Order: sequence, then structure tokens, then C-alpha cells
Amino acid sequence: MFENKERTEIEKLGEFGLIKHLTQNFSIEQTSTNKGVGDDAAVLDFAKEKTLISTDMLLEGIHFDLAYTPFKHLGYKAIQVNLSDLYAMNGIASQVTVSIGLSSRFPLETVEELYEGIQLACKKFGVDLVGGDTSASKQGLVISVTSIGHANEKDICYRDGAQEGDLICVSGDLGAAYVGLQLLEREKKIYLENPNIQPDLEGKDYIIERQLKPEARKDVVEFLKSIKVKPSAMIDVSDGLASEIKHICEQSKKGCHIYEEKIPIDPMTYDTAREFGLDPTVCALSGGEDYELLFTIKQADYDKVKDSPDISVIGHITDSPSGCQLITKSGNQHEIKAQGWNAFKA
Amino acid sequence: MFENKERTEIEKLGEFGLIKHLTQNFSIEQTSTNKGVGDDAAVLDFAKEKTLISTDMLLEGIHFDLAYTPFKHLGYKAIQVNLSDLYAMNGIASQVTVSIGLSSRFPLETVEELYEGIQLACKKFGVDLVGGDTSASKQGLVISVTSIGHANEKDICYRDGAQEGDLICVSGDLGAAYVGLQLLEREKKIYLENPNIQPDLEGKDYIIERQLKPEARKDVVEFLKSIKVKPSAMIDVSDGLASEIKHICEQSKKGCHIYEEKIPIDPMTYDTAREFGLDPTVCALSGGEDYELLFTIKQADYDKVKDSPDISVIGHITDSPSGCQLITKSGNQHEIKAQGWNAFKA
Repeated sequence: MFENKERTEIEKLGEFGLIKHLTQNFSIEQTSTNKGVGDDAAVLDFAKEKTLISTDMLLEGIHFDLAYTPFKHLGYKAIQVNLSDLYAMNGIASQVTVSIGLSSRFPLETVEELYEGIQLACKKFGVDLVGGDTSASKQGLVISVTSIGHANEKDICYRDGAQEGDLICVSGDLGAAYVGLQLLEREKKIYLENPNIQPDLEGKDYIIERQLKPEARKDVVEFLKSIKVKPSAMIDVSDGLASEIKHICEQSKKGCHIYEEKIPIDPMTYDTAREFGLDPTVCALSGGEDYELLFTIKQADYDKVKDSPDISVIGHITDSPSGCQLITKSGNQHEIKAQGWNAFKA
Repeated sequence: MFENKERTEIEKLGEFGLIKHLTQNFSIEQTSTNKGVGDDAAVLDFAKEKTLISTDMLLEGIHFDLAYTPFKHLGYKAIQVNLSDLYAMNGIASQVTVSIGLSSRFPLETVEELYEGIQLACKKFGVDLVGGDTSASKQGLVISVTSIGHANEKDICYRDGAQEGDLICVSGDLGAAYVGLQLLEREKKIYLENPNIQPDLEGKDYIIERQLKPEARKDVVEFLKSIKVKPSAMIDVSDGLASEIKHICEQSKKGCHIYEEKIPIDPMTYDTAREFGLDPTVCALSGGEDYELLFTIKQADYDKVKDSPDISVIGHITDSPSGCQLITKSGNQHEIKAQGWNAFKA
């Protein structure tokens, strides 16, 4: 579904040549970056703050399908999904390292597109690329990103701080990335059966973009700081709301009530899920890849967040024995089961 | 060449179960680790010191061959090659993150062996495992390690500090890992032609171990500190002496003279290279994977290192126009060309 006219073999450049070529347009913007690419290790200075580290690996055929994923989007997404983890600590992301394994079927031009996306994400989120590794891969494309950030000790939000009575909040809306993936998979299947048929994704931009080009919620972290709300617990929604709220409740040794009618679902997500015969609530609970922030706040902070169009209060924390419960629109109560994505299932 | 009697499918555990299972025996030992595995990011406290970050990716079929690499050794090596980069900064390694992509052809038992090797390396070198990612892989085994450490600003050794007249030193001996690889490749070929023939590696333990189970030179960094020698430039030998000395000279804007007769080569490396019809000096210059430290010191520090059995003075830094020169045993002078390993060459 994509094509490249030029083709330069990567072998010509060699490993050091390739790194140099790909990173030459990246500049160092963070004062905390004392030394970036070009030595045995990066040297960072976080003064009196704590260092935050998170890492993720994206594998072709497991985490992305190159049939419908443009390289530039993939590079952008690889950075976003990593930064999202640092924002979920209420931290400031400042650096990334990127390691890639490249199959020889990729010419230099596609790798350049990947790095364009990486650079775009770095610029937009104010992070420096400070290291990495490139290698040939006998198999498919492999991208491993480590993100590095910092925070004052008193600002850090762990998963285990939720207290009984705290309100459960989520940013943005949920389920769109999963429904977008269903659309892309359907169009891929049609394309493979008949390559003359063009993909029909018109009017579905929002949910397609949620899948291919997610945005980490740095803005939400900044908003919460500006209104002086520190979440008692926070996590990012990568595996679906159900899995994430269970992490918070288990680590905080608490239970929760989530109200189905309060879960934010975009109308396009809702309608498209229905087209596919899917329950929109299930998509939000178990779909994953939303990269929204799920967090708990004290009830006293309710007035500060209630008018934000970007934050929904979807429930509250209960005592531990009551477990994690979904209160449905019809008023029934169901235990929430984590059916998050399992990469090991065939 | 290896077998496993038990076989537990990884799918049964799922991603979170697998991480929990694999990391349950890892303990946190470093006071700088405030929070390890189990949240969105690790939280580290380096007080007034700088944070050091390095990352490497190992791919099956490119960086290792499972036909002759035991999983435990592979786990150990994956950590070593990463820590080596931090020691090359004259830093203290304190944490690692490990991401793995696993083909479904591996049962849980082999992954446990991999983590045994990782744990052994962590214990021996005093580093905490603080994060990572596990995923299925449609292709082969992928291991991505990020190592994190710290150092006082005044102790950090970059590649660009070499001065004219400085002595060039290298720890241990060179070329053994490359010659060990030739042996393993030969035995693999014989085995594939006739599986009844057992590998003949007797008496070759040292060079086999140099390939399969390298040791990062934390001890050399500690020794240099104990004798109050701070290298003016330092790098670890991962791609071969030629490639590494050229990095130091290019970044320091200097040249060098390396004396062939001074390059430390173990007798077993020397003899086995000859058996293969290889020039031992070429193995040392271009073989790579030695993970020794190459560094430059002021002439005034010569007396402090000259009696160390672990450090060889192999040349000196010259002015830039004279380039990087090898003075052969016969007294001839040749320009050193970097023929380090290129993972992109077929």
C-alpha cells in the first residue's frame, strides 16, 4: 500500500555511516543533555531531580503491520508510546534512545521516513535523541525505544497511591485506536483479495489516526500541574481501561466502581464499533493503544477538573473486598476482568 | 546442540505473568533504585551525579547463533556488552532494563535460562534490573538492553580527550573472541554435515569463553581509580582495535602510532588463528567483541600502570596530520583502516 521510487542500499553506508546519516538533523535542545549521540553512553544532568526510565519494543507482525502503517507514522508512534509511560509518572520526558533492526528489504529511503517521524515526535514533545543502535535484522523491522525523563520526588505519581473515595478520571476518549485497527485490517483484507480496490477510509480519519498516530498526553500532565492537582495514582492506557484500572486497584490494594455511561467514547468510535458488530464499551475496556492517562484524584479536587473537556470522571475507588466493578447503563454490576492484549496468543 | 526436557508454553502465562515470573528472583540492591519493575517507569536517584545511558540490541542470526550459544551465556553476554559501554565512560553501572522478543518456538524453560544468565551478570556487576518489555516475536529472538549508570562530572572519560604524546593502553588481550567464533562456526559446520560427530573444542576453553561469555572490565575502571589515573580518552573494544582507536583519534582530532609487537594477544588466540590461516594481528585489529578497554593516559602516569599485568601500553598519540599508523614488527608503517564488523554486509 506504499511505494518508494528511490532505493539506496543501507549496506553502502555501514553502521556508523547510517547512524551519522540518520541523526545529522537531530539537534540537542534539553539543558539536561550534556552529551548525546557519539560516545559510549549519553551523559545527562538532572540536578536534584529523580531520573525516570521506561522502555518498549515494537516488533513487525506483532505490534505493527507495514501493509498499512506508513514508516513516518511508525517512527512517531514508537516515540509516543514510550513518552506516554513517563507522563504516566507525572514526569517530564527529556531524552530517548532508539535502536532499530532493519531487514535488507528496506532501502535507506524508508529508514529515513521512519526517522522523520521520530524527529517530528522528538521536536513536538521536546525530547533529545541521545543514543541507540542500528543493526541488520534477518527477520523483520524491530524498534526498541528507551525514554528518559525527570521529576521532583514530590511530583511523582505511582500506581499504588489510590485511596478509598478517590475519583477515577481518564483523559480524552477510549476505544478509538482499537476500532481504527479493525477498519485497517478490513481494508487490508479487501486489498489483498483485489489490489485494484482502493481502501475506503473516508470520514474515518479520527479513529485511523488514533491507531496510527497516537499522541502522548503531555498536555494533560501540564494541565494538572497548572490547576495544582496531583493524582494519587496514575497509569497510561496502553492495554485497555480494564487492565489499567486493575493495575491501579491491585497495587493500591483497593477496589473500584466504574460507570459504563461515564466512559468517554467518541461518536465515530461508537458507530464504527457497531458497524463491526462490536460492543463499544468492550472496545474501551479491552481495546488498548489509547495512550490516554487514567488517574485518581481526591474528591476535593473535583471542582478543578469538572469543567475540563479533556477529562472525564468515570467512577471512584472503593475498599478492597468489593473488587473492580462495572456499573452498566442498565444498573447491573459486573466484575471487571482484564482482557488486555496478550502478545503471546497466536 | 542443546536440548530441553520440559516444555511450558509461554502463552499460558501472558505478558504480565511472564514478566512477574522471570523477575521474581531479582532483588533491588542499589540505593539509587527508588522504584524498579512494576510501574510505568523506573525511578532512580543519582543525587548530584550525572546519569549515564547506553543501549544495545542483539538479534538472532546477526549477533548470535543459537546453534552453539547456550541461553544462559547469551543472557550474561547481553548484559556485559551493555555495561561495557558505561565502564568505557569511567562510570559506575547501576541499573539495566531488558526487553525481549520471543519466538513461540521457545518454551518457558529456555527463557528462564536466559534470565538466569541476566541475573548472574546483574549480581556479579552489582546492577538492578529495573524495567523492560516482553513480547512475542514472529521472527527470532530479540534482546534489547539499556544500561544506566552514574558518575561525577570530573570522572567522566569521553572519546575526544586524547592529547599528543599520551600513551595508548589496552586492557587484557585482543582477538580471542573472534578466533573463538571461527572455532564455533567450524564445529557447527561439521556437526551439520554429520550430527554424530561431537564438537572438538578441547583445550580451547579460553577463546570459546571470550566469545560466548565476555566480561566487562569493571575491575580495570576500579584499578585506575585506585591508582588515581584518569584516562584522557576511553572507549570499549567492541568492533576491533582499529575501529576504536580511529574513533578516539577522529574525535580527539589527533593521530597515533600503534606498535604491532605491543598488541596483547593470548598464545591460544595466536596459535588458533594460525591454524585457521588467519593473521593474529588482523584478528586483534578487526575481530571485535573483546570488550576490553582502550584508553589514553598522560606519560607522567606511565609508572603507575607499567607493572599491571592487565594493562598493555601499545602506542602513543601523535599530531593529526600523521594519521593512525601501525608500526609492524618488521618496522614498516601502515595506515590503520577500520574494518570493524558491518552488520549490514550480507
